[in-house]
Amino acid sequence: MIIIGEKINSTLKAVRPAMDNYDAAVIQELAKKQYEAGAAYIDVNAGMYLDDEPERLEWLVKTVQEAVDAPLAIDSPNPKAMEKALKAVKNHKPLVNSITDEKERYNSIMPLVVEYNTGIVALCMDDTGMPETVEDRIKIAGRLIEKLTKKGVAIGDIFIDPMVRPIGTGSQYGVVAIETIRRIKADYPGIHIACGLSNISFGIPARKLMNQAFLVAAMAAGMDGAIMDPLDRKLMALLYATEALMGLDDFCTEFMVKFREGFFENL
Amino acid sequence: MIIIGEKINSTLKAVRPAMDNYDAAVIQELAKKQYEAGAAYIDVNAGMYLDDEPERLEWLVKTVQEAVDAPLAIDSPNPKAMEKALKAVKNHKPLVNSITDEKERYNSIMPLVVEYNTGIVALCMDDTGMPETVEDRIKIAGRLIEKLTKKGVAIGDIFIDPMVRPIGTGSQYGVVAIETIRRIKADYPGIHIACGLSNISFGIPARKLMNQAFLVAAMAAGMDGAIMDPLDRKLMALLYATEALMGLDDFCTEFMVKFREGFFENL
Repeated sequence: MIIIGEKINSTLKAVRPAMDNYDAAVIQELAKKQYEAGAAYIDVNAGMYLDDEPERLEWLVKTVQEAVDAPLAIDSPNPKAMEKALKAVKNHKPLVNSITDEKERYNSIMPLVVEYNTGIVALCMDDTGMPETVEDRIKIAGRLIEKLTKKGVAIGDIFIDPMVRPIGTGSQYGVVAIETIRRIKADYPGIHIACGLSNISFGIPARKLMNQAFLVAAMAAGMDGAIMDPLDRKLMALLYATEALMGLDDFCTEFMVKFREGFFENL
Repeated sequence: MIIIGEKINSTLKAVRPAMDNYDAAVIQELAKKQYEAGAAYIDVNAGMYLDDEPERLEWLVKTVQEAVDAPLAIDSPNPKAMEKALKAVKNHKPLVNSITDEKERYNSIMPLVVEYNTGIVALCMDDTGMPETVEDRIKIAGRLIEKLTKKGVAIGDIFIDPMVRPIGTGSQYGVVAIETIRRIKADYPGIHIACGLSNISFGIPARKLMNQAFLVAAMAAGMDGAIMDPLDRKLMALLYATEALMGLDDFCTEFMVKFREGFFENL
């Protein structure tokens, strides 16, 4: 699983004061902890700062890079903020989070993906609004993949996000997400799928429990990436179990290592 | 989910002394607890009593029936024990657990299924031994379903068990089980699928964690029954979450009831 660590995000109450005060130590600690817990990318988001998002995002990129030698996921729909952040990236190929097939968003962000040779999270959404069905999502995904690969983006640099909608707003949305994952993975074997995991449980209680169920079900359907909290030990334990279950952890090696480290105790 | 409560089983150390001593109160308490926790069937197994399995199994049937008004799953490959137990059943259509497509087992148990008009758990196994691949399992399942329905067994009375093998003995067996479930459910929409859940984790540590992952992944693939422990609250919590996730719990009604009862607290 390719984990995109979600904790450095201006919409999260816990981290907001540290961002307000440019408290590098807190941000760097969060970055380190997520990296050590298994995050492949550290996501950075400064979207709540309407007046100075570009500078704030740039600061996050620089601050995180000083602390960990890990690739970043740059999380913004704002091309100015995205460009400023991408310019500040030093070592690893970053992930642009995200584009959609909405004309304006696509046209403003896509040139940056090409210029800075980044990976890309592509959301199944277009100018007709939030997609309703599996078929709607498949069509948008197909269009995006075609456009991106024509621009020279490698299949392996594309992360399709099926646009998970909360099951609290429609009982069918869990099946829709899982079936979309299965179909896209069957049609484009080399592609990555990355969901915003916690979207599934928005508006219902016991969110962590629902996120756990969704993680396992989505991984079983072929999801190989997620924007999630790698510091949630119960969620990570189920992730390790599901990797072993799905034959992605030969001889359950990693699972056994985690067991011996005591990672599964008192969950 | 159709839960077949597995706790009254002579192979389980915790319950064995109560069986040795014909301690009806302990058995009845286990039956009641499982029923109240959501078991649709109470499984009874006396297979460890090689000398007097028929009498022991009959005693279990009578003892459980005195305590709960629930259908029983009669768990034995021994036709004598099966018949004695079936004769003792009073109120509800029982589930015969189990037949295979092994000639001797099939021929000795199947007449009882017909005579006593029972439901049936049919294991994907035949005289060539334990199946290896998904295709092997599909073939055996297809043969069993054809034979059973020809004998007049309704599709809705058949529970196919895909013969879950431990992932500790082969990294592919999780995918094999899940893919078999998906294929059988696609080919025979009216059929039930019931796995012996804990088989997946035999021989590895952190078994409960692995069983949790398997429950969710198998339910997401279409499994609608399981031989499992309904008193494992964490497992049951994930079961409720997965039913809501898969659109089997309209408006998350049951999930919300469980939340309000505090069922998801301190998991």
